[in-house]
Amino acid sequence: MTRITGKSFGSDNHAGVHPAVLAAVLAANAGDAEAYGADDVSAAATAALCERTGAVSASLVFTGTAANVLGLSLLARPYEGAICAETSHLNVDECGAAERVLGCKLLPVPAPDGKVTPPAIERRLSGIGDEHRVQPRVVQIAQVTENGTCYSLAELSELRQFCQHHDLLVLLDGARIANAAAYLDCSLAEIAAFADVLTFGGTKNGALGVEAVLVMAPGLADHVRYYRKQQMQLASKMRFLSAQINALLSDDLWLANARHANAMAARLATAISGIPGVELAYPVQSNGVFASLGEGHARRLEEAWNFHIWAEGSDSRCVVRWMTAFDTSEEDTDALAAAVKATAV
Amino acid sequence: MTRITGKSFGSDNHAGVHPAVLAAVLAANAGDAEAYGADDVSAAATAALCERTGAVSASLVFTGTAANVLGLSLLARPYEGAICAETSHLNVDECGAAERVLGCKLLPVPAPDGKVTPPAIERRLSGIGDEHRVQPRVVQIAQVTENGTCYSLAELSELRQFCQHHDLLVLLDGARIANAAAYLDCSLAEIAAFADVLTFGGTKNGALGVEAVLVMAPGLADHVRYYRKQQMQLASKMRFLSAQINALLSDDLWLANARHANAMAARLATAISGIPGVELAYPVQSNGVFASLGEGHARRLEEAWNFHIWAEGSDSRCVVRWMTAFDTSEEDTDALAAAVKATAV
Amino acid sequence: MTRITGKSFGSDNHAGVHPAVLAAVLAANAGDAEAYGADDVSAAATAALCERTGAVSASLVFTGTAANVLGLSLLARPYEGAICAETSHLNVDECGAAERVLGCKLLPVPAPDGKVTPPAIERRLSGIGDEHRVQPRVVQIAQVTENGTCYSLAELSELRQFCQHHDLLVLLDGARIANAAAYLDCSLAEIAAFADVLTFGGTKNGALGVEAVLVMAPGLADHVRYYRKQQMQLASKMRFLSAQINALLSDDLWLANARHANAMAARLATAISGIPGVELAYPVQSNGVFASLGEGHARRLEEAWNFHIWAEGSDSRCVVRWMTAFDTSEEDTDALAAAVKATAV
Amino acid sequence: MTRITGKSFGSDNHAGVHPAVLAAVLAANAGDAEAYGADDVSAAATAALCERTGAVSASLVFTGTAANVLGLSLLARPYEGAICAETSHLNVDECGAAERVLGCKLLPVPAPDGKVTPPAIERRLSGIGDEHRVQPRVVQIAQVTENGTCYSLAELSELRQFCQHHDLLVLLDGARIANAAAYLDCSLAEIAAFADVLTFGGTKNGALGVEAVLVMAPGLADHVRYYRKQQMQLASKMRFLSAQINALLSDDLWLANARHANAMAARLATAISGIPGVELAYPVQSNGVFASLGEGHARRLEEAWNFHIWAEGSDSRCVVRWMTAFDTSEEDTDALAAAVKATAV
Repeated sequence: MTRITGKSFGSDNHAGVHPAVLAAVLAANAGDAEAYGADDVSAAATAALCERTGAVSASLVFTGTAANVLGLSLLARPYEGAICAETSHLNVDECGAAERVLGCKLLPVPAPDGKVTPPAIERRLSGIGDEHRVQPRVVQIAQVTENGTCYSLAELSELRQFCQHHDLLVLLDGARIANAAAYLDCSLAEIAAFADVLTFGGTKNGALGVEAVLVMAPGLADHVRYYRKQQMQLASKMRFLSAQINALLSDDLWLANARHANAMAARLATAISGIPGVELAYPVQSNGVFASLGEGHARRLEEAWNFHIWAEGSDSRCVVRWMTAFDTSEEDTDALAAAVKATAV
Repeated sequence: MTRITGKSFGSDNHAGVHPAVLAAVLAANAGDAEAYGADDVSAAATAALCERTGAVSASLVFTGTAANVLGLSLLARPYEGAICAETSHLNVDECGAAERVLGCKLLPVPAPDGKVTPPAIERRLSGIGDEHRVQPRVVQIAQVTENGTCYSLAELSELRQFCQHHDLLVLLDGARIANAAAYLDCSLAEIAAFADVLTFGGTKNGALGVEAVLVMAPGLADHVRYYRKQQMQLASKMRFLSAQINALLSDDLWLANARHANAMAARLATAISGIPGVELAYPVQSNGVFASLGEGHARRLEEAWNFHIWAEGSDSRCVVRWMTAFDTSEEDTDALAAAVKATAV
Repeated sequence: MTRITGKSFGSDNHAGVHPAVLAAVLAANAGDAEAYGADDVSAAATAALCERTGAVSASLVFTGTAANVLGLSLLARPYEGAICAETSHLNVDECGAAERVLGCKLLPVPAPDGKVTPPAIERRLSGIGDEHRVQPRVVQIAQVTENGTCYSLAELSELRQFCQHHDLLVLLDGARIANAAAYLDCSLAEIAAFADVLTFGGTKNGALGVEAVLVMAPGLADHVRYYRKQQMQLASKMRFLSAQINALLSDDLWLANARHANAMAARLATAISGIPGVELAYPVQSNGVFASLGEGHARRLEEAWNFHIWAEGSDSRCVVRWMTAFDTSEEDTDALAAAVKATAV
Repeated sequence: MTRITGKSFGSDNHAGVHPAVLAAVLAANAGDAEAYGADDVSAAATAALCERTGAVSASLVFTGTAANVLGLSLLARPYEGAICAETSHLNVDECGAAERVLGCKLLPVPAPDGKVTPPAIERRLSGIGDEHRVQPRVVQIAQVTENGTCYSLAELSELRQFCQHHDLLVLLDGARIANAAAYLDCSLAEIAAFADVLTFGGTKNGALGVEAVLVMAPGLADHVRYYRKQQMQLASKMRFLSAQINALLSDDLWLANARHANAMAARLATAISGIPGVELAYPVQSNGVFASLGEGHARRLEEAWNFHIWAEGSDSRCVVRWMTAFDTSEEDTDALAAAVKATAV
């Protein structure tokens, strides 16, 4: 419960707000403005989001959980379900919001590296047309996944074609889509094109607190504003959420932030390679480094550093997660790597 | 869809953020912090809220709608309903969130001046013990009401006793509780004492966007954090919500802001008294002035001023609402009054 | 808690099952049959219902509450609401099932004689296009109403045109539609033509327990079987529900039952006319007689007769409800009328 | 869509109604009765259920899905989840009713033979106290399981102790509890003692359509009747559901029916043992025989017999399910066994 001293590798939301984002929030404070998004700052933000991604509609909300739920509510009827990774944020870390708020059943599939694959989906496609079964309708994926991995554009394309063939819609959780675009060296639009609805995360990438729900298919956007309000995600002083988006999209700050965070993760991964007993658990494809190490090792490291023990393993080993952020420095990274080495035996 | 020129009287959420609140947000940006409220700034905010109000638990959320819904979720079982004013924000302006998110039936009662009274409640207490009927369990009131009126402490006391006698819990919507405390010249705790759960509004009183749910009865607080997360109201970078609360509670900024807004409303009411064809629709007891005037009059005034036409009336008359805020100046107020006068014929 | 001695006028569901219905249930017991409605008896029942009413789909369920909720679920999106009579079964007597199971907000309107009228609907059509408001989408009416009155075909036609003009769908609660058709001397199809979805009640008209949801518009029927299962209304041994429908529709037993019940209500109304202090509260247009009388009178009558006190009135008066059924005899009716007279002073 | 000729082994709900049950339904039709369970027949049924099982409350509902959902609604708060077998009826075959009607997240665990085991539960007990996670609160088991297996009393005892140690409540799906009691040669009370809430199935055991929800812990029963009504499971002519229960409990008809069905399954299992290419998939511990055989074999057998292909297997094999019922005869059973043999090559 105390303020963190030194740099945290616990989460990218342990970081604060990028100065340019804060400056935009301050600038948005000039004069009065219409509430609920009917202001110039908000018009600019939604237009910019649509322009960058090819979306037909952009709706700002407060949290990543809310963005996932709002997106899902646009795609699934009450008796339809969403196939998702067993380990997905939607399934594990949203306190059952999809089930409770929407009444939507999730249909989890194994995803060893965080990715949902066509064969895994196919095994879930039983009971089509059987009224006793929730009907699979949505495939929910995260780009970046919970394991820090990214779908390649080829994988996204294959998944999309599979889904279209089986009349399944794609919902893409983009809480860290910036990191994915940076890793893949592609535009947001290139990723968005594979989804029917996606989310765009600001909070983990230098914002104070803003996420967006982007609708790619015209028919789905008609009612999103009612859903947003009903789901308690309509900000009255919207301009202050919008200003954050404008700052992130201005001069590609979103990309610079994500590239930097990714670079720090890559640097960390390199620096710890070769430390005895430490192995990468997943390839490093974003701003997260997942490593397997001894439990004792992890406990010693925890004494001075903030990070998460992601999973218990067998043989007294565990997987830890080290997250970097837009403001993680080379010095922070090198210091952590040194500490990993120093606590290794 | 354009930025408002001049001062808006459309809503207290057309105003921006008080400089002291913005300064606190900036100050909170130093260094990393634990997410989800496990940081010092947040510990201070919740402690201060509890200390000022006598609450046993304080939970920050993003919007007033969310605060009402979270509060209600702590009080009513699935088959229990909430008696509320027909005209209440909960019943009218939250896009059915209580029904959709909680499945809770609202039991509206007439409330000509916005206040729910014991006789009106009593007429709703039929069907107790009848399994075909939703069982009344909660009485939801707003202090300030949607009509800008305030319950006196005596009225609150009478209502509370009536509720206790009938085994009804009280949920108080305090989106403008600061204005009520300022009007009644009482403490927050004196109002809070009459409720089981209440909300504390920051957004309309100079904050960027923060509301709190305050639980007065120990047993109800145990699970609030799960409900908050599930209802998509858990901020990851919580410190920036908490900082706003700290700023409002520091040196009683909340009270100064509310007193000022109330004073501007009173000034406006005085200034327009005697203008032919203009009459107060409700007593002015907060930062809202509701006036009845001719429709043509309202339309002429609308050309240069931002405000809401609250209700259509008979005989080509309507009720308009003029809201003041922490930053409404005497000049703004006098200019509006002059315009009301000038457009009267 | 004891078996009723003599004929009850408490409710038409105090009556038992018509012998022809029981015989059909017995006959359906020959041999094995596919479950969930994929049997011959069920095919016949749904075909007959569609043929009689013009419906494109007929789904059997267990209760009237379930029929209303299933019907509503076909018509309203999550942010859309249903205008209904304040006194409707849907609003008052279903323990909030519409709100809880569907998350649907009901928008009650005054209906002094149980009927929803275009002017009453029109006053509820505010806030169209406003995302803060639940959007009115459905008008729910009952034919027969809770007050025993019937819409004339002209009234239904006017209501339907009004609804179409305002893009509102009509949901008709036909728990006692047989009594309405008998009273209006029209076919089921003539009533059904004014609705998008309606229910057809069997239970109150001599069945053991079966109701149907009839969909009049092709597009709405596609998914009804998933909704029925999810709403826990799919009978495994469906043939025994279907057999009841077949019996009721065979030789127009439904109509004969309803005509008889209506005739007994009319006979009762005639017999009590002129008894001092007893007045009809509503016109008698079905199998219910609603009368206003002194409270003491009602209490005396209650000692030997089973009926409901419907509403408390002023001046020590109340409204009572006397329901007749398919098996109420002329002797029963005359005996009640005599008792009303005998207890009048 | 055609009436089945010959005996079906497709499901125990393909069977009709036991004559004694039908006789009781007919007998219940004498005279008028209070609705909604306030009648003598219903009082007898609920008393008998409580007396046989040790329950403090018994509530009749229409379907097994409804019984599971009503039971679950008594045990889990909105943010609490139910651990259940991946293959359970609740998780697979109820069209998401638990999620949709209750908003309850299910937490499925692998259960190769249909049984939930303490180690499988334990692996799901992560995230306790973490507000991002649905909190495990209920362990839902079926006795008989979906695979036709039964927990021994020792297994139930071990499970119960494990659950109590971890503050988990037990919900037991007893759609086929009669078959379990018959197999284990124990009383209903001996099984019920291991649950907090259980269901008692009548429909698959010779009833027309009735299930019961039995509450074993006093505190949980207070509100069940509101939940039942809200969940659209309150029969108006309840006496006809109650009469079925009375018939089943009279002279232990429930047990005789279940014993007979179990005996026919055992006879079938014996008769098919030794047929080349046919192997039992699970031990036969109730009225279901699950066998693995070649796909071609299954298709040939399907031409003349009604049964389900339960699961596709590898190497052109599949698992079929043959269900017996209270009225399956030795001749039916032997004929099926002969057909299995005849179609084997």
